[in-house]
Amino acid sequence: MTRYDRLFGQAIERLHAEGRYRVFIDILRNKGMFPNARCFAGHNGPKPITVWCSNDYLAMGQHPKVIAAMEEALHDVGAGSGGTRNIGGNTHYHVDLEAELADLHGKEGALLFTSGYVSNDATLSTLAKILPGCVIFSDELNHASMIAGIRNSGAEKQVWRHNDVAHLEELLAAADPEVPKLIAFESVYSMDGDVAPIHAICDLADKYNALTYIDEVHAVGMYGPRGGGISDRDEAAHRITIIEGTLGKAFGVMGGYIAADSRIIDVIRSYAPGFIFTTSLSPVLVAGVLASVRHLKESSVEREGQQAAAAILKAMFRDAGLPVMPSTTHIVPLMVGDPVKAKRISDILLAEYGVYVQPINFPTVPRGTERLRFTPGPAHSEAMMRELTAALVEIWERTAKRLAA
Amino acid sequence: MTRYDRLFGQAIERLHAEGRYRVFIDILRNKGMFPNARCFAGHNGPKPITVWCSNDYLAMGQHPKVIAAMEEALHDVGAGSGGTRNIGGNTHYHVDLEAELADLHGKEGALLFTSGYVSNDATLSTLAKILPGCVIFSDELNHASMIAGIRNSGAEKQVWRHNDVAHLEELLAAADPEVPKLIAFESVYSMDGDVAPIHAICDLADKYNALTYIDEVHAVGMYGPRGGGISDRDEAAHRITIIEGTLGKAFGVMGGYIAADSRIIDVIRSYAPGFIFTTSLSPVLVAGVLASVRHLKESSVEREGQQAAAAILKAMFRDAGLPVMPSTTHIVPLMVGDPVKAKRISDILLAEYGVYVQPINFPTVPRGTERLRFTPGPAHSEAMMRELTAALVEIWERTAKRLAA
Repeated sequence: MTRYDRLFGQAIERLHAEGRYRVFIDILRNKGMFPNARCFAGHNGPKPITVWCSNDYLAMGQHPKVIAAMEEALHDVGAGSGGTRNIGGNTHYHVDLEAELADLHGKEGALLFTSGYVSNDATLSTLAKILPGCVIFSDELNHASMIAGIRNSGAEKQVWRHNDVAHLEELLAAADPEVPKLIAFESVYSMDGDVAPIHAICDLADKYNALTYIDEVHAVGMYGPRGGGISDRDEAAHRITIIEGTLGKAFGVMGGYIAADSRIIDVIRSYAPGFIFTTSLSPVLVAGVLASVRHLKESSVEREGQQAAAAILKAMFRDAGLPVMPSTTHIVPLMVGDPVKAKRISDILLAEYGVYVQPINFPTVPRGTERLRFTPGPAHSEAMMRELTAALVEIWERTAKRLAA
Repeated sequence: MTRYDRLFGQAIERLHAEGRYRVFIDILRNKGMFPNARCFAGHNGPKPITVWCSNDYLAMGQHPKVIAAMEEALHDVGAGSGGTRNIGGNTHYHVDLEAELADLHGKEGALLFTSGYVSNDATLSTLAKILPGCVIFSDELNHASMIAGIRNSGAEKQVWRHNDVAHLEELLAAADPEVPKLIAFESVYSMDGDVAPIHAICDLADKYNALTYIDEVHAVGMYGPRGGGISDRDEAAHRITIIEGTLGKAFGVMGGYIAADSRIIDVIRSYAPGFIFTTSLSPVLVAGVLASVRHLKESSVEREGQQAAAAILKAMFRDAGLPVMPSTTHIVPLMVGDPVKAKRISDILLAEYGVYVQPINFPTVPRGTERLRFTPGPAHSEAMMRELTAALVEIWERTAKRLAA
């Protein structure tokens, strides 16, 4: 086995050499007191920390309605679903949630998956197989799961420069008018915090007779009067063929979905191996999401709290001279530009200040753009933000001195 | 959009024409009273049914220890994990469960995924990329998720006839001795209920210097003195490179995992997009699985109850002259051989007898081998089995008459 061992060892060695070997921080969040958590690894016993990098953006993972709904389902129907959607795993909760999500996006139907990753992979790979000769036009910063789905589809891929509709039009115009086309993009790009020009993209889709696929995982729950995402805020949902979302970020639980017209939903439901051959989401999770989606359709307090927190933190960072990136959303990234330095700053924050923010490195972002990514939400107080800013300023000065020395 | 509509419509039409358009039965199981459940669709209000096709094989989804552990986690840390394993989603429950699963299989490490499907897809597709030129030897009845992983790896695939080690050796002997090799197979094949000859396969792996990958999703929890699967029962776990399992069948909750030496775990953890770029399992689920795995390591009552139930049901079917297939495990399939007839029998069982067993059709099984697949467990009583057998005999006679008429 030595030959295999050598290959596996070399693969790990490459990560260490680039300074991007990942160490997972071992934590438990404290329900009722988010963003507070306990940290385990490398410490003598649980140590209190503040989480600044959670994608439970609105703290719905601790919302009393969500907790109560999950507890009720747990006692009513038990832990798991016990099967695929076709074989014993289609519970009434699943049926209800799909109707709720379809309504959220103004679509005829919706389909649940075990994750957002699987939603993208399964839907994109299956769509292109149903549409012979399909060409997929993909934004260059699309998420790994969309890239996986497109690659697994075997379809021709054309990559357009990030959010550059002129480039997208060039590619569409150059393609065979007769072949099926799909434009795939995100609404909020999660590592930069910028937003796609949805209407301009839909105009091109109309002009060149293309289908559209939007990933709204970093927007659902958080934008639009009912939390339907950027396509809800911009009144563009009716122009999009397929809207994809997650249940594990702003909705606070776990899982993914698509919403579309009922025929497309039926096709994906019937043909996607990643949907067909997998145990369905636990009804306990589904019950929690139902409560979360229903709450966020009616309540805007959480969305407003998040936007306010993001605005305050960006202003504090800017005023302190920290290299905050030009995000137009709730995401607040600080550019570092080096994987080793980003990890060192993150380590100091955790060890000395009880602040948890994970360094973001390749392959999540391009090499040379390593960063710290903060996700302030309605549960982060101004006092927490002041402490965080002061800590960062102190570390930035210390690091600059060390580099100058 | 009419061109797209036509293509989508044709895809659905093909399913109707073949009689394999799937209708999901809408149910809620009754915790504390499995296999009893309530059925919604097509009925005026909830109607009581008995579930005969659940993969919650040991009814652990209603076990008091599992429910209590999930309730405790829900109140301690909240609904979801809030992030990927690398960014905020690595909870202490995840760390504990991976240690527990590594121990279950006598391996150095384990790695959690959101499902068994993702475990197979992510691990197989990544492995082959780390081993340049790798050839994968795949049993012809391997699950769709393994097939997806192998295809997505881009590696050369050699398919060996189901459980035929002579054929496997032919293919291994014909391959270049210098290239990396991986033999991928299942322990229990879930639609037939037969078992792989693990030691014979490992002998060939030794002889031809191949790695081995076994899918034990229909065996973990149910076979071996501690529930480590067929490789535990046959004392072969130490001979297998990677053991893959699920948390959504005998363990009663949701999720998937692999167990292997720590270097391989580190490679998959570091390189597999399907692991890296997805929100981690909800800590509520992980807490439930921890309780379930720990219980089944110590308790054999559930395993013995399941084996006894399967033996009784097979005997009843055989004595009644029903076409029971030659399964050597807990799975009890009845051959029908036609998708329309299988669906009709299933519909009659549900409507007239309150018996829920899903018809199994293509692509889950090859065309022409459509069947009904029963999964009796420790919670199914002999009285239930007698009622089921009587119902099937009655329907079989009725269907035979109708076909003869």
